Amino acid sequence: MEKYLITGFSGFVSKHFLEFLESLNTNVAVIGIDINLPEFDYVHYKYVRCSFIKIDLLDKNQVDNIIYIFQPAYILHLASFSSVAYSWKNPIASFSNNTNIFLNLLEQIRSLNLSCRIISVGSSEEYGNVDEKDIPLTEDQILKPVSPYAVARVSQEMLSRIYVEGYGLDVVLTRSFNHIGPGQRDIFVISSFAKQLVEIKKYNKPVELTTGNLSIIRDFVDVRDVVRAYYLLFKAGRKGEVYNICSGNGVSLEMIIKKMAALLEIEVITKVDTERIRPNDNKIIIGDSSKIKAEIDWIPTYTLEDSLRDIINYWYTTIA
Amino acid sequence: MEKYLITGFSGFVSKHFLEFLESLNTNVAVIGIDINLPEFDYVHYKYVRCSFIKIDLLDKNQVDNIIYIFQPAYILHLASFSSVAYSWKNPIASFSNNTNIFLNLLEQIRSLNLSCRIISVGSSEEYGNVDEKDIPLTEDQILKPVSPYAVARVSQEMLSRIYVEGYGLDVVLTRSFNHIGPGQRDIFVISSFAKQLVEIKKYNKPVELTTGNLSIIRDFVDVRDVVRAYYLLFKAGRKGEVYNICSGNGVSLEMIIKKMAALLEIEVITKVDTERIRPNDNKIIIGDSSKIKAEIDWIPTYTLEDSLRDIINYWYTTIA
Repeated sequence: MEKYLITGFSGFVSKHFLEFLESLNTNVAVIGIDINLPEFDYVHYKYVRCSFIKIDLLDKNQVDNIIYIFQPAYILHLASFSSVAYSWKNPIASFSNNTNIFLNLLEQIRSLNLSCRIISVGSSEEYGNVDEKDIPLTEDQILKPVSPYAVARVSQEMLSRIYVEGYGLDVVLTRSFNHIGPGQRDIFVISSFAKQLVEIKKYNKPVELTTGNLSIIRDFVDVRDVVRAYYLLFKAGRKGEVYNICSGNGVSLEMIIKKMAALLEIEVITKVDTERIRPNDNKIIIGDSSKIKAEIDWIPTYTLEDSLRDIINYWYTTIA
Repeated sequence: MEKYLITGFSGFVSKHFLEFLESLNTNVAVIGIDINLPEFDYVHYKYVRCSFIKIDLLDKNQVDNIIYIFQPAYILHLASFSSVAYSWKNPIASFSNNTNIFLNLLEQIRSLNLSCRIISVGSSEEYGNVDEKDIPLTEDQILKPVSPYAVARVSQEMLSRIYVEGYGLDVVLTRSFNHIGPGQRDIFVISSFAKQLVEIKKYNKPVELTTGNLSIIRDFVDVRDVVRAYYLLFKAGRKGEVYNICSGNGVSLEMIIKKMAALLEIEVITKVDTERIRPNDNKIIIGDSSKIKAEIDWIPTYTLEDSLRDIINYWYTTIA
């Protein structure tokens, strides 16, 4: 039976990963670890047998013990302080909780000489401020990280390469672009907009939405496509290689709001709060997905409209 | 009176930096911090008033207090676990003691809003394995670090840029090439060779020297030139810029041994110990010093022969 360890288990990505595993109709064993408790049910599956252990991933001894005892064949390293805004306020915590916990993990795999594939989840933020001429971004693009979070992710990537080339570990790297999908917490921009718009619709609240800079363009990819990519990379990705996981399409935040308002059949007025404009924010990020398509035959299956509809439905059924 | 804080005080670089400051005939105040005690006399100067505080730089509270109390105008951040070989054996310690202590330092400067210039000392190791066509290496070269130590240094550099561009700190970055000079500990290759050769000469010991790979080519620069560059960068370097500190000349370890043997008038047989060959070692590293020359008019003043002679004299007077 295949054994998976998932770090950062309590986020919405692992829930979707479990659902993907379940859809394969094959028994698998999963241990999830996180400092926060998961808010979803992880014990109701037929094929996925899942346990959760609440630990601080900075506690190296505890992480070491779990890996030693469980001996996973696959580690999906989702744990991350993934907010760019948070990283500007708490650069040390962002760095420790991204780079250092990952390094602890690699070091335990190395010291146990464990045969194990690790997916090192990175971010499109690693590219940094890029020229429009370099869009869409291929994996060969020079990385110019412009936030503490992005620096932590680039460091994680460099460490992965050292462990692959210097110590022979089996790490596959991703640069995952902005995930969207049902279940995402409302600290993330699209989920936050969706929740507010659903509230406006449901309770006839005032139609004003306070936002940051709406002109920024991002490449959004549905979490259900992302987790399928992680699975395929476990099975067929090349060791030491980095893969963009992206849709290949750019869309402005303004357009997302328009599309969601249309789905909800409401009109909305947006108001920019300058406090929410981040220093050094990237204007445009769109990925090139040719490599992952060519190598593991992955393309997104959810359209932007599919994702936005499901996100709206999620909030409709979730909020009181 | 100018105030300098020197981290990693107990290494040989800070001793030479103090001597350079003394040569300026102007009163300055210096606090040195290090986890190890300095083995040189730092209280005998006329113009340099220097105190030493023994602390672990990973202890953020202590470092914070010292910066808060002393309010230095200049911080020379020499603290580092600078052995590549050590970093392969202890990647976590190497990363913590390079990247994380530097991040703690920057964060305290930021939170105090202290007007202070920091020299972030980096390493030629950051360049990694490079094509011969890219030699000599300019600062624009893409960094491809190939050891845990080098990754830690590149991370330090990326963090410096974030603090300059995102928070407005005044950091000047270096990529310092291999330092040599009197007083360097014998864990470093040239100093180790020199000490062994002096022992051979002084005690008529067997003329066999056990070495690692002698064909690797490095760009050696005298520590006394390096510290002068640090001083000039404090005064005239451009904030956020990175500068190679190098001689611009490459020389093989084999040639260094030959030159030292000639100075000592001995003949020596070298024997390669394969245990000492490191994984992923860079074959050739030579820097281009055009930028620092053009911007702050720095060129090395010590020839390789000057340096080797002084290193040999140092060991002649030091070993029992």
